[in-house]
Order: sequence, then C-alpha cells, then structure tokens
Amino acid sequence: MLAVLLTSCITHPGVKLLIFEETSKPMKKVLKKIVPAIDEKQQLKALVEELREKIEIKARGYDERLYVRLLGSSARDTWLRDDKDIDFFLFFSEEYSKAKMEEIVTHIGRHVLEHSEKHYAEHPYIRGAYMGFDIEIVPCYAVSSPSSMLSAVDRTPFHHDFVIKRIEGKENDVRLFKQFLKGIGAYGAEARVEGFSGYLCELLIIKFGSFEGLIEHVSKMKFGEVLGFGNIDKEKVKKFRGDALIFIDPVDANRNVASALSRQKLALFIHASREYLKKPDEKFFFPEKRKIEAKFIVLKFRKRSSEIIALSFHSPVVIDDILYPQVKKTLKNLSKQLKLHGFSMLGGSYHVEKKITILFELESLKLPEAKLHIGPGVASVHENKFLEKYRKGERALCMPFIKDDRWAVYVRRKFSSAEKCLEHAVKEGLPRHILAAISKNYDIYTGGEVFERIDIKFLADYFDPIFSWEY
Amino acid sequence: MLAVLLTSCITHPGVKLLIFEETSKPMKKVLKKIVPAIDEKQQLKALVEELREKIEIKARGYDERLYVRLLGSSARDTWLRDDKDIDFFLFFSEEYSKAKMEEIVTHIGRHVLEHSEKHYAEHPYIRGAYMGFDIEIVPCYAVSSPSSMLSAVDRTPFHHDFVIKRIEGKENDVRLFKQFLKGIGAYGAEARVEGFSGYLCELLIIKFGSFEGLIEHVSKMKFGEVLGFGNIDKEKVKKFRGDALIFIDPVDANRNVASALSRQKLALFIHASREYLKKPDEKFFFPEKRKIEAKFIVLKFRKRSSEIIALSFHSPVVIDDILYPQVKKTLKNLSKQLKLHGFSMLGGSYHVEKKITILFELESLKLPEAKLHIGPGVASVHENKFLEKYRKGERALCMPFIKDDRWAVYVRRKFSSAEKCLEHAVKEGLPRHILAAISKNYDIYTGGEVFERIDIKFLADYFDPIFSWEY
Repeated sequence: MLAVLLTSCITHPGVKLLIFEETSKPMKKVLKKIVPAIDEKQQLKALVEELREKIEIKARGYDERLYVRLLGSSARDTWLRDDKDIDFFLFFSEEYSKAKMEEIVTHIGRHVLEHSEKHYAEHPYIRGAYMGFDIEIVPCYAVSSPSSMLSAVDRTPFHHDFVIKRIEGKENDVRLFKQFLKGIGAYGAEARVEGFSGYLCELLIIKFGSFEGLIEHVSKMKFGEVLGFGNIDKEKVKKFRGDALIFIDPVDANRNVASALSRQKLALFIHASREYLKKPDEKFFFPEKRKIEAKFIVLKFRKRSSEIIALSFHSPVVIDDILYPQVKKTLKNLSKQLKLHGFSMLGGSYHVEKKITILFELESLKLPEAKLHIGPGVASVHENKFLEKYRKGERALCMPFIKDDRWAVYVRRKFSSAEKCLEHAVKEGLPRHILAAISKNYDIYTGGEVFERIDIKFLADYFDPIFSWEY
Repeated sequence: MLAVLLTSCITHPGVKLLIFEETSKPMKKVLKKIVPAIDEKQQLKALVEELREKIEIKARGYDERLYVRLLGSSARDTWLRDDKDIDFFLFFSEEYSKAKMEEIVTHIGRHVLEHSEKHYAEHPYIRGAYMGFDIEIVPCYAVSSPSSMLSAVDRTPFHHDFVIKRIEGKENDVRLFKQFLKGIGAYGAEARVEGFSGYLCELLIIKFGSFEGLIEHVSKMKFGEVLGFGNIDKEKVKKFRGDALIFIDPVDANRNVASALSRQKLALFIHASREYLKKPDEKFFFPEKRKIEAKFIVLKFRKRSSEIIALSFHSPVVIDDILYPQVKKTLKNLSKQLKLHGFSMLGGSYHVEKKITILFELESLKLPEAKLHIGPGVASVHENKFLEKYRKGERALCMPFIKDDRWAVYVRRKFSSAEKCLEHAVKEGLPRHILAAISKNYDIYTGGEVFERIDIKFLADYFDPIFSWEY
C-alpha cells in the first residue's frame, strides 16, 4: 500500500497527500477483499505449473516444437481474488493450418480439462475447468513480432511481455482499478459491458503510476483524449476519431486498445472518478444491493403520465458478444419504426435475462387516425398519380388540397396504435437471432401489465436511475 | 367575342379551334354578365367627365398647374360590371410637400364626394362615393419618367400609358381573366388575397394575346417563371428569386409586378387553368354557394380522431392590408409556441370576420407531464449547475442520469395542456393589433365547442376542402 502512495506522489507531485490519506481508508478495506492471500497465490501457482505441464506433454505428443505459456492476469499477478481465470496459450509454428490447430487444442482440452467446451472468438479456443478454476486454452502462432501476426490472439504474448516488465509494484493498483470498474459496471471490453479490458486497465495504471493517479487524471479527462507511450503518430491517430478514448497499443500503433469502450461507459467512469475524489467510499468498489420498492417505482412512472409498451421474448441461445449487439440494434430499429409511424418517444431501454425485454416510453400509445401527407408540386409530373390515388382512395380522409405550391391530403395512418405498429415491426428487419426468437413467440405488455411482468430492478433503473455507489 | 378567338388562334397557332368552340360556351355566358352594357359605359363616361371637371376646378383654385387624370380599369375599359371603381389622380409639381398635397386632396374630397374618407397606402389618398360609384382621388407627382418618381403612385400614369396603347380589342379578355380570378379567389394583390393585381391581369393578357392563350400557357407554367416585354436583364431578375412568378414591370425593370402573388394563389390558378381546359365551366367564374351540412363536417372531423382548439377574439379596427399579415403571423407564432412545447400539429388555419379565429388541429390536447431534457456533457463546465438544479429541483421527475456522454433528466413540462400553453402564448410576442385585441378579451374553444362557436363555412373549408368550382 505504501508503495502505491509513494508512486502516486512521485508521478503527480501536485496532488495533496491529504486526499490519499482519506482515500486510503476505503482502499485498504477493498484491498483486503480483492488481493488474494499468499496461500491462494501459492495454490494458483502450483496448479498452473501442474496444468501447464499436462498441456505441454499432450501437445508434444503431436509436435516437439509446440510450447505453452501462461498469459493474462494470472501470469502477471493482477488477478482479482474472485476472478480465477487462467489463460494458457499454445504456440504453433506458422505452417499449421487453423483447422489442425483447432483439432489439436480440442483434443488436449478434452483430456486435460473438466467440461471442456469449444468457444469462438475470431478463432476457436477451449474453455473448461480444473480444480475449481476457469481455464482457457488458446491456440496461437509463434510470431516474431506483432506486425507478422496471423490472428488477433497472436498479439497477446506481446501484450504480456510489455506489461510484465512495467507492472511490478503496481499489481494492487491494477486490482483496485479493476474492482472500481466492476463496482460501477464498466469492467470488460465485451459487448455486454462496452467497458475497459484487463489489458487496458494495466496500461492505464502503468501510464498514471497508481490507481489514485489514474482517478485524478480521469476526473479531468476529455472525450477523445489520446494516450500512449512514447511519441504518438498523429496520422495514425486520425482513424480512431470518434472513439471515446484512444490508447495507442504499445505493441501495435495501428490499434486503439480502448476501441470497445463506449462513450456511455467512459462518461460513467469519469463521473464516478469525480464523485470518488469528492467522497471516497467502498461503495464504488462494492455497491450495495439496490433496495427496490415496486410501489415507489410505479409512483415514479405515474408522475410522468407517459405510456409504456414492452416487447418480451425468450432470449436466443447465442453468446453475449453476438446477443447484445443484436438486442441493441433491435431497440434502435423498433424505436425508428415507432418514430417513423408518428409515435413520440420519451425513452427506451432493454433488459437481457432468460427473457429479453425491449421497453418503450411513449407520449401516447394512440395517435389520431389522420396524418397530413404532403404530395408532389402542383402541375408537377407526379400530380396526376397523386390526385388519382387520393381523390378516390380508401386512405384519404378528405379531398387533396393545395398547400403553398404542393398537393396535400389528410390520410389514414397505417398504425394508430403503438401495439399494432410493434406487431408489424417485429416481423422483419430485425437481427437474425432476435427475429428467430420472436418468430417462435413474443408478448407485448402495456401500462400496468409491464410492472406485473417485467423485472422490477430493470424498471427501477429506467424510471428511477441512481448510480450504483448511491444504492 | 370573335376578336378574342381570332387573337388567340393567331398567337398560339398550335391550339386546336375545337377547344375554343367548347370553351366559348361558358365564356359567352360569362361575358354577358361581366361586360357593362353600352348605356352603362356611357353613364360612367358622363359621370367621370362631370367629376373630373369638378375636381379640376377645385384644384385649380389652389394652383393653375394642377391637373387631373382618370387612370385604372375605368380609364381603359377593362372594368367589371360589378366593380365600379373610378380612380382619379391629381398631379402636383415636385415642389409640393406631401403634407400640402394631403391637405389639398382632403379639401377637394370633402367638397366633391359623399362620405369622403382619408386612407393610407404608402401615402394618404381620398376615398368616397359619387352617384353610387366608388371614387378614389390619389395625389401624385407629375414626373417625366418612372425613374424620377418620388412615390409608388407616381408609377401609375406610366402603367396606364403602357397598357392603353396595347389593350385595344382585348378588354373583354381582361374582364374574363379578372372574373376567373375572382371566381377562384385569386383576384387582387392585397394582403387578404395575395393574388393578381388588375395591372398584372392586363399585362398577362397583352403578353399572351387572349384569355384562352393565357390559360393555355399557365396550365403548363412552372414556379419562378420570368415574364416581361423585350429583353430581360438577367442580373436584375436575380433579386426576385423565390417569388412565385416574376413579371418585369415594362415601365420599371427593377420591379416585379407579381411580387405580391403567393405560391398558394399561383398554384391555385395553375390548377384551375388545367381543370378549366379539361372541362370549361361557368362555375370557375361564378362558383355556386357552398352547400354545407354541419353534421357532415363534424363527421369528417370525427373520422380524423384528432383534437382541435380555437382561439377567438374581436377583430381589431385596422385596414385589411395591416390586419391580414398580422393574423397570419399570429397563426405562425402560436403554431411555433405549441410545437416548441411539444404539441404535434396536424394543421392550422385562420378566419377573419367580426371575430378572428385561429384554429389548430393537434394530435392531442394533452401531453404527458414528463419530457426528456438533455443537459451538458459529462465533466463539462456546465455540469455542476445542471446537477445542482435537477438533483433537488422541483421540475425533475427523476435523478439526472448519463445518456451517452451527456447528462439527461426527465422533467415536468411547462405546459401539459394545449389550452394552458395557448393562454400563456397569447400574452406576448404577437403582432401589435392582435395583442391589443386579445388583451381586451378572448375565448379558447376545444372539441365540440369549436363547432358550436366557429363559422361552419370556415370549418368546412378546413375539414372538407373542395375547390370553388366544385361547390
């Protein structure tokens, strides 16, 4: 702990020691919870050695040149006590086909791990368990530099090499940072979170020297800030324009380590940092469980006097990194359809559990039958078609008339009820897995039904949003 | 009549005689109604001579050099039987002050006319009656050319001189055209109509040779068409860009004779021309009285299932050319206010009689209490002010939350009822005379009340628009 404070003070001489003394109180408590005990570390070390050997023996049965490395947080002592992820990388020479690598790694997994399962990122890898730990075995190519890599995972060894040389003495700062992000819901680069990857956490701690140095910096951060080590090539940075945060990968200047970070999550982190500096509290790291009184949430909703409609269906069986983008796209597409048909939206949100809920808050679930339809210019080439269609047409609610220099007519809306509009919109134009799930079955709830059927924590977050450290 | 047909055929050799034979039937009937009988013309001539002399004698009592001219349609035999307007112009030399001219012309009017009244256009002139005719006496400067004119009315003698030399034999075409415009509601350049002035009618007939030649041309007219006599200076035309029709004044190339014509009225005229060519009918010139069944109009409204709200107040005592622009501006401003406060408008209209009505058709007269308010960026300089205001504020319906990279909060609307919104909006920002009239008293009607209180012809035109020739 002292080492942490010392580093911070050296890196940021302007920062008052006073703050650190205050912040150190919750940090001490947090560190006790998240730093593995010495015997836990020893247990991990022993287990890793045992498993590494088992994997390597199996691998060398195929090819003497194959070798295994432990990478990731467990290799750098930056793992959190409750996150027992152990990542082995199996290195192949470049002559191996991806199919062959998959075959070998699958075989090894089946023999060495419990519940071994194939997973797919850019390429297949194996997940399983060993003595209660979550294990991954990732096949990769042994390349001499990141520039000659054949797959994204080939970069990982270089990440490890970069971090391991610089992280010593700052491991617990990484742990604090990771736990802080977990607490506020911004840890992880996966689509479900759109937050900070473990590697990004380590780079940020290396960059700012300590957890507090980082928090101090972030509390004044602007969107689109460019971070990195050494000189930054301004030309290369251009392509990351629009990203919430740009951290040039020290092993590959063409890559933004923070590319998966959303503006929403960076904003949340910036705000949390500012609030933490004002009033450091363990709750930022370990939020309390939100206490929800359904009656109170309903009251919050009633006070808005808006109307709600929710689409609910069984979640398709597909990994989160595919599911979440599709759910977000569904919310976006359906919102667009509702707006297109004239419904005014106050807001919308989604919730994923066994069932997926897409919630819309509207000004009204009903619209008048009539809408104004502006047609072609008077005496334009399209005039005749327009007049023929609407002088007799079913849809017209009056005769066409002239408005300025154009034709206009009041026509019957396609959908005057939001429910009908949604029922139509879910039939097409939605992402594949969502469309398939909805085609099996779905429900639409409105008003009070929503509160009977939909997860109250989700509705509380929507109608009564509070930050996790304020629970 | 024959002369008319002949001229048309010569000017537009491609036009089939057949059309003219058919159109000639309604035109013959119309001409019978609108061309003054020979004895009427003689009566007018005698009266004009008598009055001209009276005015001149009075004028020369002041100054021997003053002289009187009869200008306008009665001087060019293009007047309609029912429009007995007689316009005298009294010519002053340039040494006269406008005040002196006003004094003299007022004095003459008082002695020569019945019910003589001062009116104001760009400058004062006298209106009164004489033997059942409407008389105007307009003071102007005797200038040698339009370029040296001191007031807009100084141009009128030159207009007269231009037309009188070219209109012979086409007087009845002018009458037909004027009556056609009257029938469809587009005759007159005044703000109430925004249509065609008498002078523009004459120029168009001179340009296209006949009523039918004109109708034929207009049926294919495009907006922004540039007309004139002789070469047209393209540079000078530029400043009229955006005008519905450009007719370069033959006596002043810097002036568009059609500048007062709205796109709405030109579109109406173009459409009427096309319909007239398809099926010539006396109804274009003399529409029937619209037969309105209130029950049927209410039904039309109910089918739209929209909501209506009407503002009604006593019309201020002010000339139409001031009143109408102010009424239009009122409709525009109040529409803007309603939209600004979140009300979705399907349409709006106004009606001027003893009382003025401003009508709005809305999707709903009620809005939910809540609206989404997007605030400053997270960590921006305005953040603190925003958070302070909405964390405790009366208006917030939830705690501020982060939306992408900005703060957001649901707040109570200022007006969730259109009635309250209008009541507030009529208090300021409206044109002077309207504001004064409303400050005395006004009513707001909604739904069924509107049909009880507001002119049914106006509501019929709004909810069941049909063209006057289809009545």
